[in-house]
Amino acid sequence: MSITAGRVIPCKAAVAWEAGKPLVIEQVEVAPPKAMEVRIKIKYTSLCHTDLYYWEAKGHTPLFPRIFGHEAAGIVESMGEGVTDLQVGDHVLPVFTGECKECAHCKSEESNMCDLLRINTDRGVMLNDGKSRFSINGNPINHFLGTSTFSEYTVVHVGCLVKIDPLAPLDKACILSCGISTGLGATLNVAKPKKGSTVAIFGLGAVGLSAAEGARIAGAARIIGVDMNPKRFEEARRFGITEFVNPKDHNKPVQEVIAEMTNGGVDRSVECTGNANVMISAFESVHDGWGVAVLVGVPSKDAVFMTKPINFLNERTLKGTFFGNYKPRTDLPSVVDMYMRKELEVEKFITHRVTFSEINKAFDYMIKGEGLRCVISMEE
Amino acid sequence: MSITAGRVIPCKAAVAWEAGKPLVIEQVEVAPPKAMEVRIKIKYTSLCHTDLYYWEAKGHTPLFPRIFGHEAAGIVESMGEGVTDLQVGDHVLPVFTGECKECAHCKSEESNMCDLLRINTDRGVMLNDGKSRFSINGNPINHFLGTSTFSEYTVVHVGCLVKIDPLAPLDKACILSCGISTGLGATLNVAKPKKGSTVAIFGLGAVGLSAAEGARIAGAARIIGVDMNPKRFEEARRFGITEFVNPKDHNKPVQEVIAEMTNGGVDRSVECTGNANVMISAFESVHDGWGVAVLVGVPSKDAVFMTKPINFLNERTLKGTFFGNYKPRTDLPSVVDMYMRKELEVEKFITHRVTFSEINKAFDYMIKGEGLRCVISMEE
Repeated sequence: MSITAGRVIPCKAAVAWEAGKPLVIEQVEVAPPKAMEVRIKIKYTSLCHTDLYYWEAKGHTPLFPRIFGHEAAGIVESMGEGVTDLQVGDHVLPVFTGECKECAHCKSEESNMCDLLRINTDRGVMLNDGKSRFSINGNPINHFLGTSTFSEYTVVHVGCLVKIDPLAPLDKACILSCGISTGLGATLNVAKPKKGSTVAIFGLGAVGLSAAEGARIAGAARIIGVDMNPKRFEEARRFGITEFVNPKDHNKPVQEVIAEMTNGGVDRSVECTGNANVMISAFESVHDGWGVAVLVGVPSKDAVFMTKPINFLNERTLKGTFFGNYKPRTDLPSVVDMYMRKELEVEKFITHRVTFSEINKAFDYMIKGEGLRCVISMEE
Repeated sequence: MSITAGRVIPCKAAVAWEAGKPLVIEQVEVAPPKAMEVRIKIKYTSLCHTDLYYWEAKGHTPLFPRIFGHEAAGIVESMGEGVTDLQVGDHVLPVFTGECKECAHCKSEESNMCDLLRINTDRGVMLNDGKSRFSINGNPINHFLGTSTFSEYTVVHVGCLVKIDPLAPLDKACILSCGISTGLGATLNVAKPKKGSTVAIFGLGAVGLSAAEGARIAGAARIIGVDMNPKRFEEARRFGITEFVNPKDHNKPVQEVIAEMTNGGVDRSVECTGNANVMISAFESVHDGWGVAVLVGVPSKDAVFMTKPINFLNERTLKGTFFGNYKPRTDLPSVVDMYMRKELEVEKFITHRVTFSEINKAFDYMIKGEGLRCVISMEE
């Protein structure tokens, strides 16, 4: 048992008081975990676009004050009632979606969309009692994605915690808890390119480059990167991208450009922008007979996907994926192991590092489109 | 060697002289097969909607006079140069699409859309020399789909002929050369329902019912048939359909009706109408996390498929198939074997039988929507 178990822990957290305003490092109180909950000490966290999107609070109901953050790595401090498969000191990744291991989705080999712990961006409280574990002077602060990792301590449902190899360096492994696994799994688990095949990646941000990393690991012979921003291309070479297409350089649809480059289309494509027109291009870029397109980027609510049905009838497949089809608790330890075996190159995704007190710099880098991942160290 | 080898064979054929006009049994001359061609004696043929569609010649360039017919079974009479894997007397099914065994599609495990011999509805001649093998008084008669089985003898590219078990009764096996295999393969090869799963079939014609037969063979626990015509339902019970939905009976979209019946959606759906709105319903009827929808019905050229992309992101898959993903020469013998082992019940699809001279009756039955398959015996 930890000396702090069962007691409120006062610690520092970066609180978002208002949409779009810089986070403020505050002293917060973190209540002990209730049944099926675990309190963890965050060691490293990183910033993902989803944090930025909900912090900006454009196009959805804002929920403030809130503690953002969901890409992280930490160490178990204490457990609530009913938690049997974790111990104090275990190294864990908190994940924005969970695995209860009991619902139809968790029992299906094909799904990772847990009924109980599926991502919920609107909830600012814990499932157990509908209350927050964070407070300042007795006033509750909202959780985010059930993780709220921009805090020295946080409380997470046990179903959203992945126990990992204690030898894995947490300052790198932290970025495997969201974006990198999403892109990697989209390629390795869903698109499943064969050795020697041709893969197109649409959108060369961190998720797209991790999809490219998946294609490289799978042994794809050609990996075509598609992006409107030519600055992305130099960086992308380090992720195995062999060719680039900037749709702005052509006066015909990018799917036609790709068909010409590949004698009819790529074997697999992965869409990482969330733009419906890019989804259509990604689908129509795959070869008839065997082509598979995978959608990863999250669309807006009003988006519409449309295509001629004959494109399907000619034996093309369109699939969507959520978190790379990884079941967090079951599958993510193997991703960490891939990194430990040096198959998956994690370091190249980390382009910036800041201390916790400098967390707003991470937001600035992302807003400016600089780099891929900024890791925030909780220890100054 | 057959006594007729290398000679023109005069025989009877049902010639379509004009769009939509009754076929006329004529004396035609059938030239010997050229390189990579085989001349076969048709024993039984059946009528498929594709024959009717091109005979009616609505919405495409008409090509007359023409000998229709592509679902059939026959016996090899003689072979042209270069044909090594068939012998005189072999029992064969001619198929409207082929397998050259040398193109990228034939070499791919995933495709059956042969580059050389893929279906071509506009061609009325043989590939070898761009000429017809049929003539009347020296005037050529157009081929159809490279098969033209409404003739006592016909010439077919060797890549479009499937050698089958000589013990298989040709008066039943003939219907395995098109529609039945298309629906069966859509379920068994593409949708791949698991034992105990729930499958929805949209459109309960011969193709839809063969898709249902595939679901029955795969061990589906619930098979939901969807059709606007309630007359179809009684017949459909014999094909393993356990529940029926008539969209006309509901004042909400059929996908919502099915979601309510199945706690969120079916595991697999198969679309056999070709109507774009039905395709959308079939896709939106599958469960998130693991649902797979398969499109079989051929759409019109102007059709548009549209859906919200989040339906894909929630881990649904949409695939199209052509001829049930069967490679004709490689895979179809095993379908005949399934019938011989009594796993596949072929007899129940045959609702009518006529002699060759009565062939126009087969058209009447189909136009009236009576029955499933009418087998035409070439021997009176």
